[in-house]
Amino acid sequence: MSIVVVGSVALDSVETPFGKAENALGGSATYFSAAASYFSPVNIVAVVGDDFPQEDIEFLRERGVNMEGLEVIKGGKTFHWKGYYGYNLNEAQTLDTQLNVFETFNPQLPESYRNSDYLFLANIHPALQLSVLEQVESPKLIAVDSMNLWISETRNELLTVLGKVDIAMLNDGEARQLSGEANLIKAAKAVREMGPKVVIIKKGEHGVAMFGEDSYFVLPASPVEEVKDPTGAGDSFAGGFMGYIAKAGNLEDRTLRRAVVYGSTIASFCVEDFSLERYRTLTMEEIEARYETFKEFSAFA
Amino acid sequence: MSIVVVGSVALDSVETPFGKAENALGGSATYFSAAASYFSPVNIVAVVGDDFPQEDIEFLRERGVNMEGLEVIKGGKTFHWKGYYGYNLNEAQTLDTQLNVFETFNPQLPESYRNSDYLFLANIHPALQLSVLEQVESPKLIAVDSMNLWISETRNELLTVLGKVDIAMLNDGEARQLSGEANLIKAAKAVREMGPKVVIIKKGEHGVAMFGEDSYFVLPASPVEEVKDPTGAGDSFAGGFMGYIAKAGNLEDRTLRRAVVYGSTIASFCVEDFSLERYRTLTMEEIEARYETFKEFSAFA
Repeated sequence: MSIVVVGSVALDSVETPFGKAENALGGSATYFSAAASYFSPVNIVAVVGDDFPQEDIEFLRERGVNMEGLEVIKGGKTFHWKGYYGYNLNEAQTLDTQLNVFETFNPQLPESYRNSDYLFLANIHPALQLSVLEQVESPKLIAVDSMNLWISETRNELLTVLGKVDIAMLNDGEARQLSGEANLIKAAKAVREMGPKVVIIKKGEHGVAMFGEDSYFVLPASPVEEVKDPTGAGDSFAGGFMGYIAKAGNLEDRTLRRAVVYGSTIASFCVEDFSLERYRTLTMEEIEARYETFKEFSAFA
Repeated sequence: MSIVVVGSVALDSVETPFGKAENALGGSATYFSAAASYFSPVNIVAVVGDDFPQEDIEFLRERGVNMEGLEVIKGGKTFHWKGYYGYNLNEAQTLDTQLNVFETFNPQLPESYRNSDYLFLANIHPALQLSVLEQVESPKLIAVDSMNLWISETRNELLTVLGKVDIAMLNDGEARQLSGEANLIKAAKAVREMGPKVVIIKKGEHGVAMFGEDSYFVLPASPVEEVKDPTGAGDSFAGGFMGYIAKAGNLEDRTLRRAVVYGSTIASFCVEDFSLERYRTLTMEEIEARYETFKEFSAFA
């Protein structure tokens, strides 16, 4: 079953204590697509300028990503983000954001995308997320990501989006900010009352927690010490998560739990290198092997 | 197999947003003993004044705690701690500490305790922990707890203790302070290099992580929303942990993991009421039932 993702495709310049990348492939929809492509076909909706390298388009296409919904603006420049991470690696410092063609982005779903069963609204302005929601027919599952900026600046529009989706993915700080609750269990409960049946809270080095009606699942983070660049971890998680669900084709609790583990597994590979470099070599065998190590971290009899 | 615990037996006055207790039974050795007593005989080493209620001594004795090592100082006053928790419930504000008879505490192990196989050094001055270490013969397992005060004020003595124990239990802030590492995985590794083969990091609402040579185990916290008073949670965890190991009689990874789950289970009951009230009614059946819910939180196929 195919997935539609709407979000950013970008050229990022990132520096961490372990190196740097200049004008390298980035963007929420890009990380999501690469991750999800290990499990399911992905249809991307995004915009770039004509400075966007053809080889990056080819890379995604080879991974099975349908690029029909990638609008290329003649004479336009691709969205560019410049960021820096210190040794903590938990939070990026944004040094520069050039929205460029993203400033006037008006996502249009190609006809062939409209009856996709799975939809991921990556972290973009809630008004754009709403516009995409109006273009899909009756997806089986809609998930959304957001960020501190939209929670504070466009709260009402974000609440409208949350009222229409099945799953919300937030990091711990965002969940606290959105709910006004310091305790994450209470925060998740409050976000669930805004609409989503399932709330996933990404807790960085503390792993990820999924809260459903009667289910609570927590997965620790992989003790990878080889984090070179955390950019894209959250979108990679979302891609692995949605990709696995689309492949499984059901929304049973067992499937959602496995999806959380696959999402975490792929994210743990993503951060081992800059940009999407790790996806150029990552194999399904590596993913399955690390999935097993996640089992070891959390198993007891 | 029996356990020796050395620590405080106290009368606490605690206020939280959910109520308060005045001069109620408390102390690290007390919480530890009550928790461990569900699994193993416990020998307590501590000191109180003659103001300490006989009924509290009887309560512990009925739970199977050997009180031979409880020194009662005639005319002395029992250690008293007064604390307050806000809605966050994560960190206590100490309002008053009266060391009283604890000020001159010089722990002496009764002859009958000396060949115990399991020893827990609760959070007391590292010099006292060292004095106890010199009085035991050849325990199979020694675990230690500590706190920010000893890490900053008596670091060298604490390092000597750490060089002689098998397991260190710390909360996340203490692990960071002791190691100088912000990342908990790196912090645990650094603490392991100070001596303990196993480091357990208590992460409050993020659960608990255990780091061994080749093993890493993380258990989420129970999503209990009924926390009335968090006092004693860490010592109850330690008691359930050590108690289960002493009962199992081996140090296999499988045993240590189950011990973490039993420790967390008992701690999750302890915080449901003030002081040691919950231990007055808690049954082994309740413990086993909640153990199963912990399995549900972390299971995936």
